[in-house]
Amino acid sequence: MELLKQRIREVGTVLSNDIIKLDAIMNHMIDPVLTTAMGKEFARLFREDRITKIVTIESSGIPIAFAAAQELGVPMVFARRKKSLNADVTETYSERVPSFTKGLVTDIMVSREFLDTEDRILLIDDFIANGDAARGLIRIIRRSGAYLAGVGIAVEKSFQAGGRTIRESGVRVESLVKIKAMQPGSIQFE
Amino acid sequence: MELLKQRIREVGTVLSNDIIKLDAIMNHMIDPVLTTAMGKEFARLFREDRITKIVTIESSGIPIAFAAAQELGVPMVFARRKKSLNADVTETYSERVPSFTKGLVTDIMVSREFLDTEDRILLIDDFIANGDAARGLIRIIRRSGAYLAGVGIAVEKSFQAGGRTIRESGVRVESLVKIKAMQPGSIQFE
Repeated sequence: MELLKQRIREVGTVLSNDIIKLDAIMNHMIDPVLTTAMGKEFARLFREDRITKIVTIESSGIPIAFAAAQELGVPMVFARRKKSLNADVTETYSERVPSFTKGLVTDIMVSREFLDTEDRILLIDDFIANGDAARGLIRIIRRSGAYLAGVGIAVEKSFQAGGRTIRESGVRVESLVKIKAMQPGSIQFE
Repeated sequence: MELLKQRIREVGTVLSNDIIKLDAIMNHMIDPVLTTAMGKEFARLFREDRITKIVTIESSGIPIAFAAAQELGVPMVFARRKKSLNADVTETYSERVPSFTKGLVTDIMVSREFLDTEDRILLIDDFIANGDAARGLIRIIRRSGAYLAGVGIAVEKSFQAGGRTIRESGVRVESLVKIKAMQPGSIQFE
């Protein structure tokens, strides 16, 4: 997706060989025009898959997943990263995953009532690095009995193994852009 | 907003006299049609205010704030609740606030680079109860030198003091629905 590459070139700050800061468009401030275009692109890629629900994980995945949900006309569910007083933990699917950028382990959870064996799920997230969060969500979707139609990722860091290992497990993964290498001052797209 | 009242009547579960669970439309699963309508309503209410940026707080505020940002054609910034390796803490405004539903204290923060003295901010959130999160965000906005044009809230629990005290401080607060009382099995709107 050329528009996303262009915006990454404009605002992306590579902090190290494996961390890029996209706070100005995806992870802290959201550009609604770009995000709506990303949602439309995911909708186009998965239009034939009769998606019934989009699943993402808080927080940066939410705007992109929401834009795709608007376009496909289906609900969006965001997995939560921790418990609040409003969550009934006996009624949730929960998986423990390490977070690449946060440097810690979090529990992600989805209420059982929002995943159904009839569902055809499109999983959307902003980044894929090692793929731990995506694999945790995939385990949750499979435990629910729903069908995973595919995974949509805004930015795949293809020098890390997440996207590849999920594809090798037989899941369709579509990334809007793939970064094959980066270092402070330089980003190389595939 | 009648559509929101209707959906709250359909899916809202009152857990106690002060906690209502709206996981099916706002806090875990998102209805894109309802959320887009809420965004349009906030855009209509603040159309004359020359808003330059929408500010919300992760996670449930994000879809509504994003829908308003789409409609007004301005960026949306979501305050983060904790630090990650990607955040440079010397570059952020940070405020400590208690969370009504989470039962704990969190630090909310916004990067200094995304709030400007020229900005005219619309603050949007899903709920207002005691108003601690909103007041924390308002302190952050004021510290940045930006102008706070107003606050848009999806669901105000008007039997709690948050909305009232912020209005009394001179800030315009627009709530799409106000719940004046509730108990398990019963919700009374203003």
